[in-house]
Formats: sequence, C-alpha cells, structure tokens
Amino acid sequence: MAAVIRPLFVVAGVGNAAGTGAAAARAFSKAGYSVALIARGQASLNALSEEIKSTGGEAAPFCMPSYTPGNFSSVFASISSQFPASQYSMRAALFNIGYGVWKPFLEVTPEEVQESLDTNVAAAFSFSRETILKFKENRIDAQNPNRGTLIFTGATASMRGNTRTSAFSIGKFGARALSQSLAKEFGKDDIHVAHAIIDGQIMTGAALARAGDNPPSGLSPDSIAQSYLYLANQEKSAWTWELDLRPAHERW
Amino acid sequence: MAAVIRPLFVVAGVGNAAGTGAAAARAFSKAGYSVALIARGQASLNALSEEIKSTGGEAAPFCMPSYTPGNFSSVFASISSQFPASQYSMRAALFNIGYGVWKPFLEVTPEEVQESLDTNVAAAFSFSRETILKFKENRIDAQNPNRGTLIFTGATASMRGNTRTSAFSIGKFGARALSQSLAKEFGKDDIHVAHAIIDGQIMTGAALARAGDNPPSGLSPDSIAQSYLYLANQEKSAWTWELDLRPAHERW
Amino acid sequence: MAAVIRPLFVVAGVGNAAGTGAAAARAFSKAGYSVALIARGQASLNALSEEIKSTGGEAAPFCMPSYTPGNFSSVFASISSQFPASQYSMRAALFNIGYGVWKPFLEVTPEEVQESLDTNVAAAFSFSRETILKFKENRIDAQNPNRGTLIFTGATASMRGNTRTSAFSIGKFGARALSQSLAKEFGKDDIHVAHAIIDGQIMTGAALARAGDNPPSGLSPDSIAQSYLYLANQEKSAWTWELDLRPAHERW
Amino acid sequence: MAAVIRPLFVVAGVGNAAGTGAAAARAFSKAGYSVALIARGQASLNALSEEIKSTGGEAAPFCMPSYTPGNFSSVFASISSQFPASQYSMRAALFNIGYGVWKPFLEVTPEEVQESLDTNVAAAFSFSRETILKFKENRIDAQNPNRGTLIFTGATASMRGNTRTSAFSIGKFGARALSQSLAKEFGKDDIHVAHAIIDGQIMTGAALARAGDNPPSGLSPDSIAQSYLYLANQEKSAWTWELDLRPAHERW
Repeated sequence: MAAVIRPLFVVAGVGNAAGTGAAAARAFSKAGYSVALIARGQASLNALSEEIKSTGGEAAPFCMPSYTPGNFSSVFASISSQFPASQYSMRAALFNIGYGVWKPFLEVTPEEVQESLDTNVAAAFSFSRETILKFKENRIDAQNPNRGTLIFTGATASMRGNTRTSAFSIGKFGARALSQSLAKEFGKDDIHVAHAIIDGQIMTGAALARAGDNPPSGLSPDSIAQSYLYLANQEKSAWTWELDLRPAHERW
Repeated sequence: MAAVIRPLFVVAGVGNAAGTGAAAARAFSKAGYSVALIARGQASLNALSEEIKSTGGEAAPFCMPSYTPGNFSSVFASISSQFPASQYSMRAALFNIGYGVWKPFLEVTPEEVQESLDTNVAAAFSFSRETILKFKENRIDAQNPNRGTLIFTGATASMRGNTRTSAFSIGKFGARALSQSLAKEFGKDDIHVAHAIIDGQIMTGAALARAGDNPPSGLSPDSIAQSYLYLANQEKSAWTWELDLRPAHERW
Repeated sequence: MAAVIRPLFVVAGVGNAAGTGAAAARAFSKAGYSVALIARGQASLNALSEEIKSTGGEAAPFCMPSYTPGNFSSVFASISSQFPASQYSMRAALFNIGYGVWKPFLEVTPEEVQESLDTNVAAAFSFSRETILKFKENRIDAQNPNRGTLIFTGATASMRGNTRTSAFSIGKFGARALSQSLAKEFGKDDIHVAHAIIDGQIMTGAALARAGDNPPSGLSPDSIAQSYLYLANQEKSAWTWELDLRPAHERW
Repeated sequence: MAAVIRPLFVVAGVGNAAGTGAAAARAFSKAGYSVALIARGQASLNALSEEIKSTGGEAAPFCMPSYTPGNFSSVFASISSQFPASQYSMRAALFNIGYGVWKPFLEVTPEEVQESLDTNVAAAFSFSRETILKFKENRIDAQNPNRGTLIFTGATASMRGNTRTSAFSIGKFGARALSQSLAKEFGKDDIHVAHAIIDGQIMTGAALARAGDNPPSGLSPDSIAQSYLYLANQEKSAWTWELDLRPAHERW
C-alpha cells in the first residue's frame, strides 16, 4: 500500500510571530502543508514551530546563522532529512527575507550595499536554486498538476527607486528580476514562480488589533498569506507572475 | 424579521457560453451571488440564464442593442427593477466587453477606431459609472466589509502596443487607465477595482477538452473566473489592483 | 538641375504662441524646416505663422474647425497643395493636441469622455495615418537616412491613472498605445515614432520669465522643443521610442 | 585674471576602442571635455588615451585592478590629482561597466551571482558616490546651470528578466533602481542622473563597417554616445531620467 505523501511548504524569513512569514506558515499549515521554517533567530523560530504543532500542524525550525549560498544548501539538506522524500513532497516555497535600510544615498555604507545585495538577491538566488532542484524531483499527476510554487515577497521598492531607498531598492529590484527570469524559464516545467508587491506598511497583529474597526492603515500579514495560498492553488492554465497588494484606503 | 439580502453580480460581455463572462457568471453563482447577465445577443444570453437557473442559481438576461452610455443606464434600471434593493445588493461587477481588430495600421478604418474606443473605453466608463453609483448605496458591516468589487478583463494589448494592434491597444490601454483611476479614487470608499491582464489565448471549453492531458496552450475561462472570485473575496487590508494571468507553458 | 527639396515639419496643436507646439514650430524652423501649423484658432495660428516668417522662416497656417478624421485628410491635402512634393518633403510631424479634463469620476459627462477619446486618440490616429502616408512617399539616401519622424506629446497621465484623471488618462494612455504600435510597425520602413512624457507643468514664456533665476517649477516649451528636434535627428541605429521630461527640482 | 576651468568627463568601463565607453569618451572630448578613462585593461586604456590626445583632446587613463568600492575612491583621488580643481571641474560621468552572463539558471554559479552584483550594482553605487561628491563641489551659474550629469548604460535586461538572464538581470535591475533613486534625490541639487536602455546588440566599429549600406542590425556606439551628450546638454527645466535606444529595424 502506497504511503500518503504530504505536501511541504518551506518558508525563509520568519522574522517573528507577527509577520508575513509566520502568517504564511500558519495559512499553509491549515491548508494541509507541513512547514519548514527558516530564520536567523532560534527563539522565535522555535516558538512558531511549537505554536503550529499545538494547533495540529506539522512544523520544524531550521536556524541559519546568516543568509549565504552555502548555508542554504546545508539547510535544505537538513530539511530533506527531517522531511524525507518517502513521506513529503516540497510543493511550495516562500522567499520572505528582506534587508531594508532607508537613508540618504551619501550616508549608505559599502557594508549596507553589500548586505542588501547579499540578503535580498544572492540569498534569493541560492534559496531559489535549492527550491527549483527540489521541485524538479516532483511528479505531476491529476492531483498535483504543478511541480511547485515559489513566491517572493516584494515591496514598493521593487518597482520604484526613491530618495532614501537607494540601498533597499537595488536589492528588491534584483529579486524581482530573478523572479521574472525564473517564471519564464521554469513555467514549461510546470513550476510556478510569483512575485507579490506589498505596496504599503505591513501591520503586525498588535497594530492591527489596535486599529479596531477603523480602516486599516497597513496590510494584515494574514491577508497577504491568503494571497500566497491562492497563488499556490492557481490552476495552471492561468498563472499569475505578479500582483500588487495594498490597503483599501492607501493613497498610491 | 429582517429580510436576507442576496449579493448580486453584474457581468457585461457574455459573448457565448464558452467564454470568460459566462464562466464568471457560473463561478459567482456557485459562490452564492445572483447574476445579471448583459450581452448583445439574446439567444446565448437566454441560454446561459437558463443554464444557471437549472443548476439552482438565480439569473436574468439583459440584452443591449449596442454598448453605449445611454443604454447602460437603462439596463441598470432594468436590473434594479428585477433585483430590487429590498432583496438584493449589487456587490460585484465584471466589465468583460472587448472589441478587437488586428490588422496593419494603414488598413484600420475610422469606423474601427471609433468602435474600439466606444466599446473598450466609453462603454467601460458608462458601465463603471452605473456600478460605482450602485456600490455607493451599499452599507459596509462585519459581513460585508467592501462596498463592492469591479473587475476589468484586460489583455496583453492593455500593456503593450504592437504591430497589428494599434486599433485594439488604444482601447485596452484606455480601459486600463480607467481602472487604475477608479481604484485610486474609490479605494477610500471601500470599493475595490481590479484589472486582470489575460496574457494569452482564452480557450473555449471545447478547445480545452481537446487539449486533454497536454499542457494547455491557452487559458481556461473557468480558471480566469476563479481569479475574479478571489479578487472579490480579498480582505480589504490587502487588495490587488492588477494581476497577470497566463498559461504555465506560455513563452512571454 | 535638380531642385533643392526642403524638409517640412507639420505640427498639430499650436494652441498659442507660448506653448509646446509653437516652440516646436520655431525650433524646427530655425533648424531649416518649413513648417505647416495646424490649430483650431485662426488668430493665434496666423500670428505664429507671421512671426516665423518675420524671422526668415517659411510657415503657413492651416485652421481646422474640429479635430476629426475627415478634417485631417482635407488639411493634409491643403498642406500638400501649399508645400508641393516637387519642392518639399515632409520629414517630421508632431501630434501636440490634447484635451484635458480633471475632475472626480462621477462628475465626468459622457460628452467629456467622447471629447477625450476623439481628441486624444481618434484625432491622433487620423493625423498619424496622413503622416505615415506622406512619409512613405519619401526616399531615403545618405543625406536623409530616415523617411520621417512622428512625435507625440504625452503626459504623466499617459503612464498612470489617478483620482481626478479618469477622463484625461483614458485618452493619453490610448495615444501612447498608438505611438508604440506605430514605432514597432514602421521602424522597418525607416519611420521613427517617438513618445515624450511631459511629467510636470509646462510653463508659458511669461511664467518662465517671472521665475527668473529661481529653479524652474515647470518645463520650458523651448526645452521640450529641443528634445523633439533631438529625436528627429537621432541616427537610425539608436532610436528612442520614449523619453520622460521633467524639471530638475520636480518631486516624482 | 581668473583661470579658465575645463569641464571633465569621467567614464568607467572603457572595454576596448570599439565600444560605447570609448565612443562616449571621443564624443565628450570633441565637445570640449577633458576625459578621465577608467578600465581594467591597461593596454586598451593607454591606446584610447593616446588616440584622443592625437586628435587634440585631453585624456588620461586610470587602470583599476577590479571594480570594488575601495578602488573607486582611490581612482577618484588619482583623477583629482591629475585634473586639479583649480583647472578642472568634473561635470559629466558615465557608468558603462557591465558584467553579463547568459545561461540557464541552474548553471549559474554563486561566483557569477556575486560578480554580477559586485560589478553591475556595488561598483555603480561606489562610482556614483564619488561622482555625486565631486558634483556637489561644483558651482552653478549662467554658463553651468547643472552641477553635473551622471549617466548609466542599461540594457534590455534592466527592464525584463528572461530565461537565461537571471544572473545578468539581477545586476541590471539593481543599477536601474540606483539611477532612479539618485535622479529623485539629487535633482533638487541640480544634479542630473539618467539611465539609457540599450535595447539591442551594440555593434563594434568593424561590424558596423561590414554592414555597409544595409539597415543596421545593431546599435552604433557613436550614436549611443551622441545620446549621452544630448542628455548632458539638456536644459534643466526638461530633464530625462530614462530613454530607450534601439535600431530602426529591430523587432521589439
């Protein structure tokens, strides 16, 4: 009798329990995915993992000392070991890592430039490589028509450079370029790559609660997560590469 | 005891039973909306209306002799009469009317220019006006946080002019401009306006069936319709104005 | 002995002596072109024509009662009669006609929608047709490597819809679509089509003089005209379709 | 008696005598600028420097072992020493350095990702910093209304990611983001930043000569250089941030 293979969702960039990465982990867990959580901070990672398990989900934390190519390949090895191919099939991934610095151009240091490029782009490149390689192992059939869905969290700065965003936008533009290149190259392999432009402030749960009935002045991480789940579920004759997300009352 | 108010979906441009407009009507009907169908051809309109009713839905056909401003205001009057405010609340609308002519620039006639502008833009303007006015009558509450969602069906030609598309793209660019203006103006009123770029060939049901297990070479109307339903259901802290839709295997 | 053929520049939309159309007429005249001036107002047309002639240039006014397709073909017939092919070769054209109305969407009338589409798009289509037909008559040789250059004056509203710009942007988006379609279709025929996005307020001569040494808060028509002349002079291995123009101190 | 101050043009990325950087150096030299040439290859640098001097221009070569932040600050120190502020005023700069690798995503190495980000983005950041600091020293007056013009050479891959361009486009998107941020931040300081999208193959002089009278299948470096000179000469009420350049007969 064939074992049931569970879908696995890998999310990189689970800053804290209140952000987009954590919300996506919860949403995919509720939708039936096991979740592999990647972040730099062990404590919040463990807490989120425990929280998801306490609600009946399956989760495991994978701590990275820093977001560098070599590290991603070893983290993915750990994930494969924890979630073996005999029981799990990685079907969705989210690159939610971002390094943002907002300051006048002449105050930006070479180290900040490097950090932006490393974190927003080189890490995305490396994470994407490991993800695509895993997706390529997947079979497609009537129940799983896609090999997998890779989503990037973008920002206003993915589309427009602005005063004070030189160091941030160089990285976010780069990740957008990567996502478009991947979408075009791997669509034919039934791998879906999407890029979401978060065009506003992301509100933590606390901030959202404070807002109460008033119109939200920022984006709810849970609502962003629902959009990511929708992208992962799109039927393959009508895939979205890019969508923008912003609060109803936002001026733009 | 308060009457239950049913949500109403108005779709303009129900060409035939196999297209995007019809698929959207079915999808919104299944999701609990009553549907008002607008098109120029009485026969196919009636057939779709009967089909939806035969599956337990509520539908009514509204035939228009031509897509002109005056006609939209009278059609909306008929819709209001058929679906009175005491029982129905218009909460979603789709402008799916398109006039496409593909030919070398010098072969385009002044009549074709006029037809493209009338159908793709002036009709969209008029339909939007009636829709926004209806949405503004709606109350918002915990169950209905949005006043309404207005969706436009766009195309590759909404984004790029090309050889042989001068007459088509002038209209599709115009409708995109309108949708963005509306999204920015009425977001603060909790009215959601979205624009979908259908970046590929839309396949009729028959063509899709023929394709069988092969990778689809075009977009399924049902899949497009699912995206429209998703847009109408987005939580209002994270609304999408624009998303692209194309087949997995499309080269773009 | 072969007659010397003078290049002819046709500009449609010479609102008054202080605007972009007039500045372009002066700049092309100084660069050696004869100029055909098209506008709806006879008095300002005549004044500009006389002014250009008084500085040694060659100019003629062509008044149009309204900007409609039929009118453009008769105006071009008049231009051909005034500037016969035996002596003149139309090598550059500027579509500088624009109809702008800025108001909330619900205040826009059907007539204003129609006026925007007629003036910004249908008139552009018709003017382009007459221009392309004239350009196609031109020979190319070492001295005249291009058959001709057709330039469109765009605006911020050519790129973005906004609150209060629905009626204007539908027209400006449409003209941009047209210009891109033409650029792609007629490049192979050595016809250059370009679109300039005027991303700011155009200052009349008087306003510019008042500004004095202060940083300009708007665009000088003469500077825009210099850009148009540059576009007409681009060598054909490196043609620009689109460029943006805005004041140095503009926030954008 | 006041010394005459000569304008200085600094160009980084003078690959060989046939490319865009060299063409720009020649064009700015002919227009009256002294030129500082930066490249990694000493031999071609020296040859170009000698060539410009032999035609009556003033030039000096500055060889860099590699394009890294520290190196740019020492090269600019050398330039300041060779072209002292008492006699020269740096008024124009071109960042023409590009690292391109076209290959399937899974074949791209981490080193190539790093090289693309270092060369296309981090080097651009560093070069821009030195340039802006020099421009800020400049006075503006009637003869020199701008503090300086900084131009970036972009590519098709600055706008669109594609199959086989993941490693290249991440860098070119990043440089575009930087140029837009700088344009917005320093416009108010009368510093002009522009970005040219070279949307086609750049032809070396030899290839162009071979093409003869046939329509050019690529862009002439000299024509690109003319566009750069035009950008540097734009009057400051009408500055261009971005323009595209492509051959007349290109399909796009």
